[in-house]
Amino acid sequence: MADSPNCDLKSLSPLQLFERVTEQGEKVRALKAGKAPKDEIDAAVRMLLSLKLSYKTTTGQDYQAGLPPKDLVLINNGTSKEEDEDLVDPWNVQTSNAKGVDYDKLIVRFGSSKIDTDLINRIERATGQKPHHFLRRGIFFSHRDMDQVLDAYENKKPFYLYTGRGPSSQAMHVGHLIPFMFTKWLQEVFDVPLVIQLTDDEKYLWKDMTIEKAYEYARENAKDIIACGFDVNKTFIFSDLDYLGTSAGFYKNIVKVQKHVTFNQVKGIFGFTDSDCIGKISFPAIQAAPSFSSSFPQIFNGKENIQCLIPCAIDQDPYFRMTRDVAPRIGQPKPALLHSVFFPALQGAQTKMSASDPNSSIFLTDTPKQIKTKINKHAFSGGRDTIEEHRKYGGNCDVDVSFMYLTFFLEDDDRLEQLKQAYTSGELLTGELKKVLIETMQPLVAAHQERRKQVTDEIVKQFMTPRKLAFEF
Amino acid sequence: MADSPNCDLKSLSPLQLFERVTEQGEKVRALKAGKAPKDEIDAAVRMLLSLKLSYKTTTGQDYQAGLPPKDLVLINNGTSKEEDEDLVDPWNVQTSNAKGVDYDKLIVRFGSSKIDTDLINRIERATGQKPHHFLRRGIFFSHRDMDQVLDAYENKKPFYLYTGRGPSSQAMHVGHLIPFMFTKWLQEVFDVPLVIQLTDDEKYLWKDMTIEKAYEYARENAKDIIACGFDVNKTFIFSDLDYLGTSAGFYKNIVKVQKHVTFNQVKGIFGFTDSDCIGKISFPAIQAAPSFSSSFPQIFNGKENIQCLIPCAIDQDPYFRMTRDVAPRIGQPKPALLHSVFFPALQGAQTKMSASDPNSSIFLTDTPKQIKTKINKHAFSGGRDTIEEHRKYGGNCDVDVSFMYLTFFLEDDDRLEQLKQAYTSGELLTGELKKVLIETMQPLVAAHQERRKQVTDEIVKQFMTPRKLAFEF
Repeated sequence: MADSPNCDLKSLSPLQLFERVTEQGEKVRALKAGKAPKDEIDAAVRMLLSLKLSYKTTTGQDYQAGLPPKDLVLINNGTSKEEDEDLVDPWNVQTSNAKGVDYDKLIVRFGSSKIDTDLINRIERATGQKPHHFLRRGIFFSHRDMDQVLDAYENKKPFYLYTGRGPSSQAMHVGHLIPFMFTKWLQEVFDVPLVIQLTDDEKYLWKDMTIEKAYEYARENAKDIIACGFDVNKTFIFSDLDYLGTSAGFYKNIVKVQKHVTFNQVKGIFGFTDSDCIGKISFPAIQAAPSFSSSFPQIFNGKENIQCLIPCAIDQDPYFRMTRDVAPRIGQPKPALLHSVFFPALQGAQTKMSASDPNSSIFLTDTPKQIKTKINKHAFSGGRDTIEEHRKYGGNCDVDVSFMYLTFFLEDDDRLEQLKQAYTSGELLTGELKKVLIETMQPLVAAHQERRKQVTDEIVKQFMTPRKLAFEF
Repeated sequence: MADSPNCDLKSLSPLQLFERVTEQGEKVRALKAGKAPKDEIDAAVRMLLSLKLSYKTTTGQDYQAGLPPKDLVLINNGTSKEEDEDLVDPWNVQTSNAKGVDYDKLIVRFGSSKIDTDLINRIERATGQKPHHFLRRGIFFSHRDMDQVLDAYENKKPFYLYTGRGPSSQAMHVGHLIPFMFTKWLQEVFDVPLVIQLTDDEKYLWKDMTIEKAYEYARENAKDIIACGFDVNKTFIFSDLDYLGTSAGFYKNIVKVQKHVTFNQVKGIFGFTDSDCIGKISFPAIQAAPSFSSSFPQIFNGKENIQCLIPCAIDQDPYFRMTRDVAPRIGQPKPALLHSVFFPALQGAQTKMSASDPNSSIFLTDTPKQIKTKINKHAFSGGRDTIEEHRKYGGNCDVDVSFMYLTFFLEDDDRLEQLKQAYTSGELLTGELKKVLIETMQPLVAAHQERRKQVTDEIVKQFMTPRKLAFEF
């Protein structure tokens, strides 16, 4: 270690600083234990205090032994996960609990904050709109720095939304719409620009797929996203494969992030190994870069430092913990986040759905008949084995997938509450609950298909053309 | 290992195949040694033969135990280098020999081919031009597949030239001009398009430098390169930071290469470690991609598969060994190469020059007086300690830096030969040889400065604008 505690401390990441403080603490203990000369111990203590101060300045947190900086708690390297913990990373979601992942535990492990009633009320006050049912029902349940976004909004400072999708196939299911439905609502109530990244390069790198196929899926997925009802004047959708070759700012931010993240770090955060291709290893920088407004000079008039807010499923959080760690070191604001729970498979909440298993969810291309059959045949039931038992003991909404789906798609709070009580009391049978779900999903999917039909190639092109949006910066 | 020898063998790189054959050979030996049942040994032998066949099909070489595929001999991971071997990679050139690196040994180690008299004569026949003195004097001494380029050229098939520079500072020295002087000659005699990559992103990643500074150096270096006399209608110069954001094809090729190279491979080839940033780890793909014509759709009319020829110093070969390994797996032709020796520092041929030490070479900005002082003061002499001894025993041209520089810059073969004889015999003194060098370099540098003054920002912009060149594809 260098003698001067301040030499290049500024260039260290929170995690590196954390390691330096820990090392220095051990050194002080060793000196004391070894009854070293007083002046030597004093010098080591002074350096320790100085390092702790740097740590606090950089992270905004007091150093706590054994507790790495909040934004950087590692999650998916097997060793750090306890036996009974859920596995959650961008490629895996696993839990042994039929109710699904334990989200309260996840908040503690990820070091994010719970979206509580206070925050929901504040969003309502700031926007003057009734909070979306995804907020009211805890579907978006966790955040990072949403209060800062609201501070800025209340002070008339601009921000923008960023979300995305990995176009791994043409087939999108209803669960894929969750972040987009919520993002659309956010865009409407806050009236802000939105960028949507289609990571076709990621899919090419991870899957056995040609570049052309990945790009084709990106364009097809864009149609489903546009069909959610986004405003073309306020929304820019881009494929990485496309946009990287047309943006003056995007690659510069990518390479800035790539300079400030080591292989050790992505190994810790994403579990990469030496056998992974170098494309995977450097990809996290590509998902990070849209968090910085200078990646979109055409939208933000070249302005850096416009605050970004990212609504996403919580499995994407590792990318943005990394981004938040890098941001101050490249002179950019940390993106804020809103995290959603996972959408359960029809077969139960133990796993995230798979686009490759047509029975694992309701797809956006399903016919009314397919929807009916899938729900009746595959939706995991929290009901009892016999009608008699069900009437006597009631069903279990916590594990019933039909009920879970209704919390996502049935907007009427009173109706949902009635269904819950009736099912729990045994008054409502599984078949009847499924019928409600079928009647909810059939028109919802049909309406989506109708809107998607209107999305011509020309409209896709408009959304995907880099351009100024209806905002002045 | 999978049971079927053919399962996914096609997706393996030559090196991976080599490892599979080696493993299987060991298995066969172990089975035989352990007196395993005959049918088990037979099956293992059949698989070994099948693997060897795949190896031959893929690499065009017979499998030889202990001899990895030609294009992929690793060089700079300390372990594979023998004690007395020279260290040569893109960031280090070290030798303990005052004559410089042992290039014959390097050809064997790198698995390239010597540029012999036959090849030089063939170039003369094909172009109808006297070969450049860099060829005649062995300054460009090694190649890969140059005969194939000549085959294609004689059959009127097009090819293009690709070279580059890492713009680490504003200051270029005369040694930096070597590849450009030679490339200019190649372009003239073959009349082909030329692309020149300025790896400002690499310099940003490797050095303590801002993106803006790296880009500024790229533009400044472009002026010195243009001053070598390239034809704007046949030459495209690009900064990575710039061009990546304006090319539809470049990023697609980068991501293709990135998918087919693992961290293990770049660790072996370039010596990267887990502490290196992910930008460095993925950078080799960015230097590889211009080897494929689809990176320049504006020049090649979107055509893939135009043969590429890369003149460069041999320290850049690791990048292109990697590129040649990947090329067939992404359906692209392997680039051919012409390798130059290193330009020696004034202080002696033991090290490559450093742009950060003003006395290590003659810089393109030096005044006639500076050139004179530097040569007189710093040019390592192969002369004797006293005039008497020198007259008696003569000087040693093999280690004399002034004489080496003259082999690069004095075009007159007869004059050079006379100087060599006079110096070796003791007739010519060190001071007199240095005077010849001074008189050669002063007008050469002055003429360069004069031409550079003519290179306006407007001209730089023309060279650096992606556009069609004066060739039909």
